[in-house]
Amino acid sequence: MEGHVLALAGGVGGAKLVRGLSQVLAPEQLTVVVNTADDFEHLGLSVSPDLDSVMYALAGLNDTERGWGLTGETWRFMHALGRLDAPTWFSLGDQDLATHVVRTEMLRNGATLSEVTQHLAKVLGIEHPVFPMSDQAVRTMVQTTDGPLEFQRYFVQHQCAPEVTGFQFVGAAEAKMSPGLAAALTRADLSAVIICPSNPFISIDPMLAIAGVRSALLNTSAPCVAVTPIVGGNAIKGPAAKMLSELGLSQSAEGIVEHYGDLLDGFLADEQDRHSLGFDGALDLKFDNTLMKSDEDRQRVARAALAQAQRLATL
Amino acid sequence: MEGHVLALAGGVGGAKLVRGLSQVLAPEQLTVVVNTADDFEHLGLSVSPDLDSVMYALAGLNDTERGWGLTGETWRFMHALGRLDAPTWFSLGDQDLATHVVRTEMLRNGATLSEVTQHLAKVLGIEHPVFPMSDQAVRTMVQTTDGPLEFQRYFVQHQCAPEVTGFQFVGAAEAKMSPGLAAALTRADLSAVIICPSNPFISIDPMLAIAGVRSALLNTSAPCVAVTPIVGGNAIKGPAAKMLSELGLSQSAEGIVEHYGDLLDGFLADEQDRHSLGFDGALDLKFDNTLMKSDEDRQRVARAALAQAQRLATL
Repeated sequence: MEGHVLALAGGVGGAKLVRGLSQVLAPEQLTVVVNTADDFEHLGLSVSPDLDSVMYALAGLNDTERGWGLTGETWRFMHALGRLDAPTWFSLGDQDLATHVVRTEMLRNGATLSEVTQHLAKVLGIEHPVFPMSDQAVRTMVQTTDGPLEFQRYFVQHQCAPEVTGFQFVGAAEAKMSPGLAAALTRADLSAVIICPSNPFISIDPMLAIAGVRSALLNTSAPCVAVTPIVGGNAIKGPAAKMLSELGLSQSAEGIVEHYGDLLDGFLADEQDRHSLGFDGALDLKFDNTLMKSDEDRQRVARAALAQAQRLATL
Repeated sequence: MEGHVLALAGGVGGAKLVRGLSQVLAPEQLTVVVNTADDFEHLGLSVSPDLDSVMYALAGLNDTERGWGLTGETWRFMHALGRLDAPTWFSLGDQDLATHVVRTEMLRNGATLSEVTQHLAKVLGIEHPVFPMSDQAVRTMVQTTDGPLEFQRYFVQHQCAPEVTGFQFVGAAEAKMSPGLAAALTRADLSAVIICPSNPFISIDPMLAIAGVRSALLNTSAPCVAVTPIVGGNAIKGPAAKMLSELGLSQSAEGIVEHYGDLLDGFLADEQDRHSLGFDGALDLKFDNTLMKSDEDRQRVARAALAQAQRLATL
């Protein structure tokens, strides 16, 4: 791969591809930018679920069986919280807590979220640069037929049950790109933008809502390739398929492409959807086995997406 | 026991006698007031070690083998903190953390430390009223031959090794008694003040440094009885004996009495010191086995101190 790659990632699904990209690209070839619109303040702690998912995956510390959080996690803190009649709807593991406590204290002492993330990545031994999308707070409000819900209330407390009618990214209009995102978008050697298989509505759209991001992606000569978060009409994890349907889009990889619109130059779909997908126009469509259960899988999908971008760049 | 009892307590030693007092007195007969000059902010969390020791003991949740903290405690958070290169000199157990997180959030949201303590005591099922000495911050600075040290730095990080030359209770001059302490001291039916077997220099003196406390104790008609924290020339736990020696006082129960001076009406010493102790003057001296290893021990010492106060009251 020539040049520099910018990967845009949400939580768990995005973290898998980021892990694969980090194994096929050198640290200086990759910038990872992560959604922070899921972040929230809980029990006085600053929690950044997507940043943590990405960092834990890059550090090889993520729990691949449970699918989120740290491997070897324990829940004694939650047990004690319950004994104190404190809210227990959001699970904070004993080890994971250390991340939140360190982040919260650094932010209170005036560090930016980028600085905190850089510090955490460093102490976790992560060599590839990871940045939040912004150092300002952007918070997803989920509009539902039951009324608006803060993202984690919708996602964790209500288990994505309410019917979604739309999203609001509070603070996005005032937020600036993080220095790391801004730098990556203006690199002369930017050769690919990879949109990871994350939920487009709640993981990628918040980034696109920050001033200048969408236009930079449209204007860059680097091809933008999205890896499908939908396989056979369903999301591997999370509410993406349900949201497509509730928003009146096709509950399929086609719905994802339709949603991203002219942002995409290429789309890496899953083999399972080879015979059901058909697009008009200029979009470059490739197929691969996009399930990522092992590091080999993650590297294969990373290589496929990078190869697709490279082919598009030389067209 | 007629009337109301005020117990002044520091950490672990004080907590043992408080536990005993709570088992021989009804909730409405006892007010427990706890030192908060050991409190500190650590990693952004508000930690109140003495309040927690007393509450955990009252709730029967304290670890009696380790001598501090919660029973069944685990240390996964500390392990993860270490992985993040964060300071690990002060041990925070996974369960214990829930207390600090809840306290920190309540304080940040504007609750007083008394309100936080009342809430925590309630959810832990504690029926006897427990109050901090003050709702304002009072912080012990330990003056040592190596210079001044914040209390927890001296106590935990330096393991009490530096030679002590004195103490400063920062904030004590401006601090007010907590409402619970003020109310107990002005009760018409106050019939005994029990100074628990806590370190006089760092657990009891901070309370006496708050405006009005010493004079109220001197002026109340209720007898003031201290239970010795020194047995056979040594402290059961902690640096009391070392401090007596470094401050040029007798390293014995006599040194404790000398230090408290005219505050005391009675002193409950240990049997082991029966033949070595001799005081002039008005002090009522009693002896008992003051070691508190079991609930029976704690009740016995509680009863002995209360009986001594009751005899003094009827003189």
